[in-house]
Amino acid sequence: MTRKALLIGIGPGGPDQLTVEAVRALNEVDVFLVADKEAAAGREGTGDLVALREEICRRHITGNNYRIVTVPDPPRDRAPVADHGYGRQVRDWHAARARAYTDAIVKHTRPDEVLGFLVWGDPSLYDSTIRVVERIRSCGVDLDYQVIPGVSSVQLLAARHRIVLNRIGGPITVTTGRRLGTDVARGADTLVVFLDGCLSCAELPGAGWDIWWGANLGTASEELVAGRLGEVMDAIRAARKRAKAAQGWVMDVYLLRRAAVS
Amino acid sequence: MTRKALLIGIGPGGPDQLTVEAVRALNEVDVFLVADKEAAAGREGTGDLVALREEICRRHITGNNYRIVTVPDPPRDRAPVADHGYGRQVRDWHAARARAYTDAIVKHTRPDEVLGFLVWGDPSLYDSTIRVVERIRSCGVDLDYQVIPGVSSVQLLAARHRIVLNRIGGPITVTTGRRLGTDVARGADTLVVFLDGCLSCAELPGAGWDIWWGANLGTASEELVAGRLGEVMDAIRAARKRAKAAQGWVMDVYLLRRAAVS
Repeated sequence: MTRKALLIGIGPGGPDQLTVEAVRALNEVDVFLVADKEAAAGREGTGDLVALREEICRRHITGNNYRIVTVPDPPRDRAPVADHGYGRQVRDWHAARARAYTDAIVKHTRPDEVLGFLVWGDPSLYDSTIRVVERIRSCGVDLDYQVIPGVSSVQLLAARHRIVLNRIGGPITVTTGRRLGTDVARGADTLVVFLDGCLSCAELPGAGWDIWWGANLGTASEELVAGRLGEVMDAIRAARKRAKAAQGWVMDVYLLRRAAVS
Repeated sequence: MTRKALLIGIGPGGPDQLTVEAVRALNEVDVFLVADKEAAAGREGTGDLVALREEICRRHITGNNYRIVTVPDPPRDRAPVADHGYGRQVRDWHAARARAYTDAIVKHTRPDEVLGFLVWGDPSLYDSTIRVVERIRSCGVDLDYQVIPGVSSVQLLAARHRIVLNRIGGPITVTTGRRLGTDVARGADTLVVFLDGCLSCAELPGAGWDIWWGANLGTASEELVAGRLGEVMDAIRAARKRAKAAQGWVMDVYLLRRAAVS
């Protein structure tokens, strides 16, 4: 019997920032598989994130005819590596995660139950869920799945700042903190940057760039800062600290655009 | 009195692909301002798109305590121009559109009514609504506005093909058909391409790229094709024709990724 799974994008953080289709999908799920990041070594302060996810379930699922299975999240090796080593490190972690999920599925669910994976933001952008589910299939679990898209944090960032990401007809480079320098060197002048806890934008010439930054978007601890990069870095660092203090964790994203020469 | 406007991303096409927050925003609107593309010279076959939008209103707005004001859409000059001329052409069109909306707002709405602009997909990606509303403000209309993000067609494309847009940790170049050649020449190897009615990807070496393509995503005439670029171009052209024949219009988007050398 082929198991059915739903990978559901639940939006950037607000409890109502998921689609009507996603709400319908939530209601089809029998068992939600949730990574227990609390159980993983060295990861703390995400309890609130788990609570937010549970609130979304409570708010949008009719009745309580579902259960949540927590899956121990394998510790992730975050030792710095060169670029070619980073992909391997991530792939090893995906493999370990897939093994943990496979164990949980076999032990704690029946083949006729619909499995649900909740994904913050959208599953198509810097998220591992699709790759992990593909690996669960290659671990021998007979599983078919469907993906329900969600609003990404960068879209909420743009909405809050009331900006269009692209210049008229111009391209956007979507990248990560670790790649930012490389992409700027290659000529990118409009960049959306994910996964940059180190704020590597601070290394760019501050007079040459405008930034629209946001953290914990959609939640009560949301923070927004915009301006000339060199003039707002301190405000961004302070806002980052406030978000972390208020919520226990901080997730941020930003748009950088090369400033018009004055 | 400051007027209030809501710019609401309503998702890529399906009637339930808007967020719960967007549904709430729809219910706050008194007057929807809708561009009457039918009335514009040389634009035909979008009647069905208008119907789809009306279906979204009927389905998600409680009661019928709202009205729709159609605004004649100024004809858009689509004569081919060099890159530096394209921006100007678009800006002229935004200005004409803003004048038409300003007229409609002044003539057909009261200052205490909440105005609504419905945006296919997400207002932050290759959409003119935010820029046009900013121009309406600079035309002298005292207006404050809020943007509600939506799922973009590229996210539904990724969901349907069950893919992550980025390689692990890698960048994505989001661009348009007219810029594709330039961005590839600059070294982009993962590209999301909007606004490419001419399928300019056909000019790339077909053996060197993989493509994930989709049209009219979320609607009954949805089409999907994926494969090695050189092997699927005919299938894409045929699917494009089918979508257009079925729906009266076709809107497509695709992901291109440089193929692994075999």
